[in-house]
Amino acid sequence: MRAVVLSIGRELARGLWLDTHSRDIARALSALGIDVVRHVTLDDDTASIADALRRAADEADVIIASGGLGPTQDDCTRSALAEALGEELVENAEAMAHLERFAKARGQAVSRANRVQALLPKSARVLPNPVGTAVGIEAVIAGARLFCVPGVPVEMRTMLDEQVLPQLAESAGGRTMVVRTVRTFGLFESVVGEKLSDLMTPGRRPHVGTAVHSGVIDIHIYASGLRKEAEALVAADAATVRDRLGTAVFGEGHTGLEDAAAALLAERHATVAVAESCTGGLVAAKLVNVPGMSDHFVEGVVAYANASKVRTLGVDEALIARHGAVSEAVARAMAEGVRARAAADVALGVTGIAGPGGGTPDKPVGTVWMAVADSAGTDAARRLFMGDRAQIRQRAAYAALNMLRLRLMEAHRR
Amino acid sequence: MRAVVLSIGRELARGLWLDTHSRDIARALSALGIDVVRHVTLDDDTASIADALRRAADEADVIIASGGLGPTQDDCTRSALAEALGEELVENAEAMAHLERFAKARGQAVSRANRVQALLPKSARVLPNPVGTAVGIEAVIAGARLFCVPGVPVEMRTMLDEQVLPQLAESAGGRTMVVRTVRTFGLFESVVGEKLSDLMTPGRRPHVGTAVHSGVIDIHIYASGLRKEAEALVAADAATVRDRLGTAVFGEGHTGLEDAAAALLAERHATVAVAESCTGGLVAAKLVNVPGMSDHFVEGVVAYANASKVRTLGVDEALIARHGAVSEAVARAMAEGVRARAAADVALGVTGIAGPGGGTPDKPVGTVWMAVADSAGTDAARRLFMGDRAQIRQRAAYAALNMLRLRLMEAHRR
Repeated sequence: MRAVVLSIGRELARGLWLDTHSRDIARALSALGIDVVRHVTLDDDTASIADALRRAADEADVIIASGGLGPTQDDCTRSALAEALGEELVENAEAMAHLERFAKARGQAVSRANRVQALLPKSARVLPNPVGTAVGIEAVIAGARLFCVPGVPVEMRTMLDEQVLPQLAESAGGRTMVVRTVRTFGLFESVVGEKLSDLMTPGRRPHVGTAVHSGVIDIHIYASGLRKEAEALVAADAATVRDRLGTAVFGEGHTGLEDAAAALLAERHATVAVAESCTGGLVAAKLVNVPGMSDHFVEGVVAYANASKVRTLGVDEALIARHGAVSEAVARAMAEGVRARAAADVALGVTGIAGPGGGTPDKPVGTVWMAVADSAGTDAARRLFMGDRAQIRQRAAYAALNMLRLRLMEAHRR
Repeated sequence: MRAVVLSIGRELARGLWLDTHSRDIARALSALGIDVVRHVTLDDDTASIADALRRAADEADVIIASGGLGPTQDDCTRSALAEALGEELVENAEAMAHLERFAKARGQAVSRANRVQALLPKSARVLPNPVGTAVGIEAVIAGARLFCVPGVPVEMRTMLDEQVLPQLAESAGGRTMVVRTVRTFGLFESVVGEKLSDLMTPGRRPHVGTAVHSGVIDIHIYASGLRKEAEALVAADAATVRDRLGTAVFGEGHTGLEDAAAALLAERHATVAVAESCTGGLVAAKLVNVPGMSDHFVEGVVAYANASKVRTLGVDEALIARHGAVSEAVARAMAEGVRARAAADVALGVTGIAGPGGGTPDKPVGTVWMAVADSAGTDAARRLFMGDRAQIRQRAAYAALNMLRLRLMEAHRR
């Protein structure tokens, strides 16, 4: 089965807003083994939407269109569909009943503006929308099945999950696309490429590819086919990837470095504390975003000013004077200081120069010292990160979480 | 001038990766007053790329295509272009010289695999790439100007900025699209819609639209035309919007709530400290991301455990026992405690239930108490945020930054 995805809206076409619906819909269709040949982001223009619908019907079995179903003059998906079908728009009783229910729930009558939302091409059917006023539309255009859903994210998502995907899954006949993502941190992409070169040969099944962001390298493995066979192929590759990349692998799918560290904290029944300077609370914020962290995260200190490092973390003023605030000695003292204050099992200290100012030839912008302390002692490492202020802070936070993760793994083995 | 933007890559079409190039290119073209009618995200397939090129040439004056110029078998933009032009691929001397320069810089010869990158359709010209091995391609297809650039982000961006946009600006003859974004926080979208309803009439010039995320409502104002006239129109609307929405407006363009608060701190030569529970360091992290905050941000405490609230912030244990950790009294004590500890001019305290667990009928998930303290006293407010854990924390962080901003504005008037 082949599919074309359409996303409708002037702001989207002109690049004022980022179109994420096309990605979400394409991914969901791919998971059903449906071949998404392209997605198209279109202006709110009746003629060009009608044209896009006709072209999509020429080459695809399924078309999903989002957007343009609202009540304003900008919304022209309904009239474009009528044009593409060569039909007139007529008031649909089911759609009208839906609008009336929604208006009634608010104690109002259906407004003149809203009434246009009940106009559908004659041969089209209503696709129920449990979460908004705009009904979706189901139609057949030149033999292709078309589903139109609203552009409002929660409505799109609900109708896709509850109406569109179940209908398509039924007709996909057991074929599917299986995707697994193995996540790593701390390797160069070229090293990953070398270690996995035989798996990454073009045309090989499963297909193996890499994507890099903020020091995280994701290895995507995907195969389409009958579920069981595709799953076995992908599982075999995932095992090979894990084996070859070792402790650099921190998880799969949507697992973040903070999730991996949090899981280890839970396994060890360990508590953690964090002292941050340049990352300014990012490490704590990432950890605290993991549900259930109240059992493990005790305290974080954002010791941005030197006075705060001395007062709250107990860093020796003389140490700062001698080595500078961005130094191995201070990173160690921060980790040890916050560990003592919070009486935590393990603690991180991070201090660095995020820029744009503050760099020196010795310690250029991007220099970060980080330390991890537990009952076995304290380790420290110096890193140099590239990018702007936000990127340097992001990468430093990831590197610190990875340091915590590796320390907790070692502690397991002790 | 009308444009179509093409983005080429299997991972993009299937929704495994998010296509941001189309948005970036569409936005840059819109800024030149070029009408982007659609962008298309395509699979790596010679026939369908060739078809998309021909169709785009039918209806646009300019086509920008990114991706598919690499050396592997997946990369078929070159052959698709040859097919669309009805020409053969021949070795281009300029492209070959570029490959040789790049290989030489690495002390290597041009590899067999890389040689295919010098094959161009006969009538095409090289678009220089200063930052990578893949040269871009410039061609004319059925009267439309086509620019092909690599998909690697830094290469796409460099070639767009240095080659494509200057050439297009020259032929755009002074026409441009002017966009301004006025940013607000703390209003309902329906209220903004009412206050600006006359400006938002469909078809009006400038076009005024709203976008909402995490409590921030952006008002986009845009007009195309000759620069000076369009700028004047947009400026007049921006002034009206600012006037009608008052102190809810915190900035324009890419200004964040943290930037607005930081600017006020700088104006007042004031220092700030933050005590956070549910937001876990997010408020501090946002503030510290503003360059130059080392002069103003003194200290942040992530007092996640109650023991930490008592020990580090000096919150009375009895207060927590009586009112609970998520309460007005504790939020006030946290703000006052961190203000005293850091000897800061102004301080925030944030405590809440981010979920998924921990809610009660009295204090459901999403309940957040926040307080701001300065020399004039302490104010507190209760909020209820919807969404998942990450959304609740994000919204709470924004609301706290807004509270800080408004307090600093008032302090100005005192």
